Amino acid sequence: MSSSIIGRAVESDLVKISIHNLREYSTDKHRRVDDRPYGGGPGMIMSCETIFRAVEDLKTPTSKVIYMSPSGEVFKQRLAEELVEEEHLILLCGHYEGVDQRVLDGIIDREISIGDYILSNGNLAAMVISDAVIRLIPGALGCSESAIDESFNQEDGLLEHPQYTRPEEFRHMRVPEVLLSGNHKKIKEWRSEQSYQKTLTRRPDLLKEK
Amino acid sequence: MSSSIIGRAVESDLVKISIHNLREYSTDKHRRVDDRPYGGGPGMIMSCETIFRAVEDLKTPTSKVIYMSPSGEVFKQRLAEELVEEEHLILLCGHYEGVDQRVLDGIIDREISIGDYILSNGNLAAMVISDAVIRLIPGALGCSESAIDESFNQEDGLLEHPQYTRPEEFRHMRVPEVLLSGNHKKIKEWRSEQSYQKTLTRRPDLLKEK
Repeated sequence: MSSSIIGRAVESDLVKISIHNLREYSTDKHRRVDDRPYGGGPGMIMSCETIFRAVEDLKTPTSKVIYMSPSGEVFKQRLAEELVEEEHLILLCGHYEGVDQRVLDGIIDREISIGDYILSNGNLAAMVISDAVIRLIPGALGCSESAIDESFNQEDGLLEHPQYTRPEEFRHMRVPEVLLSGNHKKIKEWRSEQSYQKTLTRRPDLLKEK
Repeated sequence: MSSSIIGRAVESDLVKISIHNLREYSTDKHRRVDDRPYGGGPGMIMSCETIFRAVEDLKTPTSKVIYMSPSGEVFKQRLAEELVEEEHLILLCGHYEGVDQRVLDGIIDREISIGDYILSNGNLAAMVISDAVIRLIPGALGCSESAIDESFNQEDGLLEHPQYTRPEEFRHMRVPEVLLSGNHKKIKEWRSEQSYQKTLTRRPDLLKEK
């Protein structure tokens, strides 16, 4: 959490991050937070009681409680933009064996997945969501970073066009002439066309979503 | 990187992780690794020279070089299964302003995105990929964890069915009778049906992919 943008947001009091260990809320003498599944099967399931106790302790009237789950709705930039409007987020990180369904039914507002892959646990997923959301808090990005962000938004969901910096030629690979032309109209057209073509080739699904 | 499964894999010599700072490969007196984009626009672009120098220094004949990029192919479990077969992965993490196109054309084998959202930089994305890949190395998961993994694979790309653990009743929410029945055939049918229905409701796209 101490990477540049997040660390700076914490230092500037733009956001407060607290990490809680579910075991601290367990009343079991071994501080257990999970138990075997009804109906059999491998793995352990995180039980309701500890999680309800933890969430009810941390919750405020404005909290949104999110469970990091491979079964959740897929996290996208649009969802980050929605979450940054919230006053208080509680991100519940499970292990991949899962959580008692009554937690999801009774105390979770939203289940979110960062992608269709299996991670060791939900912690990394929570870090990804925190990073994507915190950098959208007004003031979290420096001026130059904000400008880039705006340029991203202009792309309107397309992949980014190719970028080049010095030198003009590197191992016989040259910067496209148009970028050296100084003709801003042509540069803009070239970049739009490149964005569109790249998106069409690699991620036609993004064009359909529009 | 010191989370349980990854940390254990490193300790057991199943995998070796090295982190390199691109600045160490810069010949610029200020150790700069980026420069302004040709054609104008906000932000800085990571330049070819430093990256070529770094990658060529670290590369072995079997290395696969991956650039973490929002424009890359979307990371999925299938891709993790492919990457775990590789001898040596080099994960190049940019900042979100981007990298000189000639790096992508000349020295990168693959561009990968962990999802359609913007992160502060590629480091978190590299951690996500490392986690998803390392846990697939034979021996990285403990016995009970492997068993869960197999049960995931049985699901064959569907979302997981609801899970329950003790107590039988919690705040008037009861465990479904079938899971208490001891009838393994019925339990299996119920779980398959639940998986299918959940996938149909939440992620019909996963059914289409099959």
